[in-house]
Amino acid sequence: MSSTYGILFKISTFGESHGPGIGVVIDGCPAGLTFDTDFIQHELDRRKPGQSRITTQRREADEFEVLSGVFEGQTQGTPISLLIRNTDQRSKDYGHIAEQFRPSHADYTYQTKYGSRDYRGGGRSSARETAARVAAGAVAKLLLAQQGVQIQAYVSQVGKLRLEKPYQELTLALAEENAVRCPDPETAERMFQYIDETRKRGDSIGGVVDCVITGVPAGWGEPVFDKLHAELGKAMLSINAVKGFEYGSGFAGAELYGSAHNDEFYTDADGHVRTKTNHSGGVQGGISNGEDIYFRTAFKPVATIMQDQDSVDVHGQPVTVSGKGRHDPCVVPRAVPIVESMAALVLADMFLRNKASRV
Amino acid sequence: MSSTYGILFKISTFGESHGPGIGVVIDGCPAGLTFDTDFIQHELDRRKPGQSRITTQRREADEFEVLSGVFEGQTQGTPISLLIRNTDQRSKDYGHIAEQFRPSHADYTYQTKYGSRDYRGGGRSSARETAARVAAGAVAKLLLAQQGVQIQAYVSQVGKLRLEKPYQELTLALAEENAVRCPDPETAERMFQYIDETRKRGDSIGGVVDCVITGVPAGWGEPVFDKLHAELGKAMLSINAVKGFEYGSGFAGAELYGSAHNDEFYTDADGHVRTKTNHSGGVQGGISNGEDIYFRTAFKPVATIMQDQDSVDVHGQPVTVSGKGRHDPCVVPRAVPIVESMAALVLADMFLRNKASRV
Amino acid sequence: MSSTYGILFKISTFGESHGPGIGVVIDGCPAGLTFDTDFIQHELDRRKPGQSRITTQRREADEFEVLSGVFEGQTQGTPISLLIRNTDQRSKDYGHIAEQFRPSHADYTYQTKYGSRDYRGGGRSSARETAARVAAGAVAKLLLAQQGVQIQAYVSQVGKLRLEKPYQELTLALAEENAVRCPDPETAERMFQYIDETRKRGDSIGGVVDCVITGVPAGWGEPVFDKLHAELGKAMLSINAVKGFEYGSGFAGAELYGSAHNDEFYTDADGHVRTKTNHSGGVQGGISNGEDIYFRTAFKPVATIMQDQDSVDVHGQPVTVSGKGRHDPCVVPRAVPIVESMAALVLADMFLRNKASRV
Amino acid sequence: MSSTYGILFKISTFGESHGPGIGVVIDGCPAGLTFDTDFIQHELDRRKPGQSRITTQRREADEFEVLSGVFEGQTQGTPISLLIRNTDQRSKDYGHIAEQFRPSHADYTYQTKYGSRDYRGGGRSSARETAARVAAGAVAKLLLAQQGVQIQAYVSQVGKLRLEKPYQELTLALAEENAVRCPDPETAERMFQYIDETRKRGDSIGGVVDCVITGVPAGWGEPVFDKLHAELGKAMLSINAVKGFEYGSGFAGAELYGSAHNDEFYTDADGHVRTKTNHSGGVQGGISNGEDIYFRTAFKPVATIMQDQDSVDVHGQPVTVSGKGRHDPCVVPRAVPIVESMAALVLADMFLRNKASRV
Repeated sequence: MSSTYGILFKISTFGESHGPGIGVVIDGCPAGLTFDTDFIQHELDRRKPGQSRITTQRREADEFEVLSGVFEGQTQGTPISLLIRNTDQRSKDYGHIAEQFRPSHADYTYQTKYGSRDYRGGGRSSARETAARVAAGAVAKLLLAQQGVQIQAYVSQVGKLRLEKPYQELTLALAEENAVRCPDPETAERMFQYIDETRKRGDSIGGVVDCVITGVPAGWGEPVFDKLHAELGKAMLSINAVKGFEYGSGFAGAELYGSAHNDEFYTDADGHVRTKTNHSGGVQGGISNGEDIYFRTAFKPVATIMQDQDSVDVHGQPVTVSGKGRHDPCVVPRAVPIVESMAALVLADMFLRNKASRV
Repeated sequence: MSSTYGILFKISTFGESHGPGIGVVIDGCPAGLTFDTDFIQHELDRRKPGQSRITTQRREADEFEVLSGVFEGQTQGTPISLLIRNTDQRSKDYGHIAEQFRPSHADYTYQTKYGSRDYRGGGRSSARETAARVAAGAVAKLLLAQQGVQIQAYVSQVGKLRLEKPYQELTLALAEENAVRCPDPETAERMFQYIDETRKRGDSIGGVVDCVITGVPAGWGEPVFDKLHAELGKAMLSINAVKGFEYGSGFAGAELYGSAHNDEFYTDADGHVRTKTNHSGGVQGGISNGEDIYFRTAFKPVATIMQDQDSVDVHGQPVTVSGKGRHDPCVVPRAVPIVESMAALVLADMFLRNKASRV
Repeated sequence: MSSTYGILFKISTFGESHGPGIGVVIDGCPAGLTFDTDFIQHELDRRKPGQSRITTQRREADEFEVLSGVFEGQTQGTPISLLIRNTDQRSKDYGHIAEQFRPSHADYTYQTKYGSRDYRGGGRSSARETAARVAAGAVAKLLLAQQGVQIQAYVSQVGKLRLEKPYQELTLALAEENAVRCPDPETAERMFQYIDETRKRGDSIGGVVDCVITGVPAGWGEPVFDKLHAELGKAMLSINAVKGFEYGSGFAGAELYGSAHNDEFYTDADGHVRTKTNHSGGVQGGISNGEDIYFRTAFKPVATIMQDQDSVDVHGQPVTVSGKGRHDPCVVPRAVPIVESMAALVLADMFLRNKASRV
Repeated sequence: MSSTYGILFKISTFGESHGPGIGVVIDGCPAGLTFDTDFIQHELDRRKPGQSRITTQRREADEFEVLSGVFEGQTQGTPISLLIRNTDQRSKDYGHIAEQFRPSHADYTYQTKYGSRDYRGGGRSSARETAARVAAGAVAKLLLAQQGVQIQAYVSQVGKLRLEKPYQELTLALAEENAVRCPDPETAERMFQYIDETRKRGDSIGGVVDCVITGVPAGWGEPVFDKLHAELGKAMLSINAVKGFEYGSGFAGAELYGSAHNDEFYTDADGHVRTKTNHSGGVQGGISNGEDIYFRTAFKPVATIMQDQDSVDVHGQPVTVSGKGRHDPCVVPRAVPIVESMAALVLADMFLRNKASRV
């Protein structure tokens, strides 16, 4: 088990879906940061269940308590601990899966690795764990905002339905105006219907979240192993249900010739070195180059569906797993703040690490 | 700078393209492993330049010296240090770029982050750095082979030319039979021509490497942050020129319904719990489930091309960068052993870490 | 700030003296350990204030809540989070030091490093932070007890009053029979009077805690930097008020000739390799050798005294710091469980790390 | 095995006593530091064997090669790799101990932990390993010198012979004027005779090294676990033969009352906050306070002696170990640069880590 992430801005998350609560300790947040509790709560609200009929109906207030690290409204350089109590636990809903392995969940692998598992709602493997990430990510965002860095993710694909426009042609803030978190209102409406129909059939559907980060100066990222995009990739892939990550030109870049792919440099009117194109996605050699950082994260369909499935029990005997409980028919709308949070955690760490680059 | 990777099987690489050499220290390789120098040299030979006319003509023997950690043919549990001397350095070829930023290279970002850079052949940002990864990866492979784990990567795409067959229908060992490292001979030949034509035009082209890992038992991987596929993703993204990573169903999985994507469990004739399909790519909840581990890595076209490009110099003034030096027109054939090596390093670390999972 | 310790058995502590609470996240405790809450509470009770008139009169129940990681009475391999609420906070007692630097406290250094500080009772620098260490250490002790490892510390010196007998001549369990935690009842009584007289004068006094660990097999410890005794030393020195650490022969060993100091080997009746003497303190070359591990930790007198002292305020102006609040006149009785806990954390980590030593 | 130390200024050492060489990779040295090879060689020369008749007669030039990380005389922010070839290996001298466990060496513990060992001269457990530490420490000293930090260690005790003067009354630079490295010439001469007589008897003797660090500003050190003195303690205890560490008042501080031990603050003529006394040894709450940092390290007598000793062989059978080979009769003269180097490595890391303390 490794629930710790980061070198200097380091977080340790804890908590199971149906235990007392979920939380995080942030060790290494610099002192002197104004701790905006309203903003943090706002971020948690963006992730919390029950926001619309296309998200899980589990009811959680997701209110957080600050256990340490903040004094007179400021961070102190000491560990910040945030706790979110679980309230709507309904453990009895999950008794039926105590002895079953749900297809494409982590039941079997946890049982095999650890010899037991908290089967209630997935326990530690539940996506509820991401609430702690969002709380910590919100603190990271506060730190980054001081540096002029802004992070905005949005839904670009649900199933086979894609938003074809590049992000430069979108008003990203519109993503927060609808339940799907797609910045194109017309596409958002179609995605909503797509998800809702999927939900009605008791099925689930995958999707893609795009993320754009502005304001990162050239110089963040620690090659050769902790390249900025490598850490972003790990962070995204560590989110439940993620199956793929690409940045800049991504997989499509593999189809291009170098003469088409290379980003030529020029000096802009303000004397800044810039690139004419951005196939690099804002990162060259693992270090930010001052352009927008852009990446995409693919999510599989949620494994919980309201249909019977073949499986085995803990004794290896065949069983039928019947869909029960509450779930999201499509995870990407709620994944948007999670993607942003993980990006913020990576960038906060890279910001601090970069301070040691030169004498 | 972070040139250290791994928690228990930890490597630190060093070296620049045109300095005295490239090397690695492996700290944490268990004692008692037979150190097969022939195998390690064989792996280095798979990566080394000059293998055919579609790879760079730089000539490097890439012979390695064992500086420590091996006694009487066995590892001792002490740090293993391997050194590969640079021989064909031709630094004068690179004098012209001392003051220029080559498009889509790391010249500009290194210069900005560190205030200077070893401009000879890219210095630390050169793909030559991966020789050290392959040397270390070969040691990891020796450790994994004892556990019955085999890793085989191959080229599945060059530019727009894709190998459409799934890996289950291929004889992967055939990948080593041709210069492209594509296991389908007919496709390999077409890829070779594709790359060679690109080379003749002074251009470069991207591609995709697929990787299949067999023999990993259920239980490897350390959620929630160090999920097996998240570490694989970081490891792949840390390789030069990589733009994307996906495992199992990958980006295509985002298009599917849960009812189609879920991998149902069954018990096989030997009493092992298996899945009927493998959209999970051998990893569920960040932990291996005993099925084949399968992932794909996208590489952009090599940034060095034999064509004039617009750029700026270190003073921000416009310049024309002219292609010189030696380079690979397509990186994926030589990337195959690098992908395997990084996968081996991840798995060796996860194998050791898993030993601490249970009392 | 670094409030994280350990590589595999990793803890992150949090909390200030007068904030909402103190706690710890344990990331990496193996699954399958019976979680004995009574034992953990018993350990906390050994450390808690108000145990006798020679310890601080602050009243804290020091009851802990398990927030995560335990299911059906067993650890799950997931992060274990333990929270101890602060109850007797009396912040108003500390308002007078908001602008003063108390001599030999951490007020000045925290203020300088972080630009601010939680001045209430020392904030993060308070010894109250050690409650979290004891909670985590108790879990580590449970893990170690399964391996047959027992840890027993005791007070061997208060001021100039020393217990002259070596540990082999003492019944260490008697340490828990008196308020001083000295296993020699007669010396304990004299120490009690010594401390009580010091207390009455409004002064404080230093002391030494010895620690004996039995049952560690040969092989634990990770040279060359993470030698077993080096990690024990770091762990002890990280406890508030510690000024020195020695193991085996310690500083006295510097006076000896090699011919007197060397521990000759022999094979005992059970066929075990043993040493005739134990100047090595159970550790050779940074690795346990199967003998008792023995070390000593020196504590300075508590900085809080009930006497006027010269100092400066946050503006550099001279002030008189007057003793107020509650404090321990001598820290060593309550330090005994803290020393044991830190030793347990080191050993638990080394136990797990050693699993990766050999193929 | 853990041969890696440091978080930001990270080193990985490698090499055995009688293998091809000893070396280190420094990952995280900032770019832009002038790399003074003469200074580094000078530091290695201070540690190397054969300096006088009271040090081992092994002959090693200890010349180092820079394998990476330096370009045009400057560090580049990339890993710096330094290699020192072994030249005077005489492995045949050690064949007799292949099957024996030398008393108070690491033979038995390495054999037990790893299942084998490189017995030639102690292999990895040889003090020769410290050459790599001194090379890395010299680079750290270059970084620290830029910050105005100076480190000076000296021999304060050999066996029962102590230098009674406090460091403030000594001219520390005189330590380099004699073979013992004691800054008091008269005491140095007596120590030399003491060691030489010990040598003639085929015995060895322990000693103590004191260290004084000037110029560290207030604010370095990372509580609560990575307190400055805790890291210094770990670093010293990781050196071969070290048995104890104390800083400031140390073990003697345990005898004092708080009213005598507390360091009162005042503001000096330059407006700096200072302490009247320095029982704190320059560190309060784990953070430097701007005063001199002062600590002491105790070394046991070298385990190799020219006398017969009882022991057992690898089969547990009784044997007589006869002294052969070359050794130091007293380690402390050569330990002086090693102590300084480890202190420099700790401080360089803390200097860089402190950059992330505040927004």
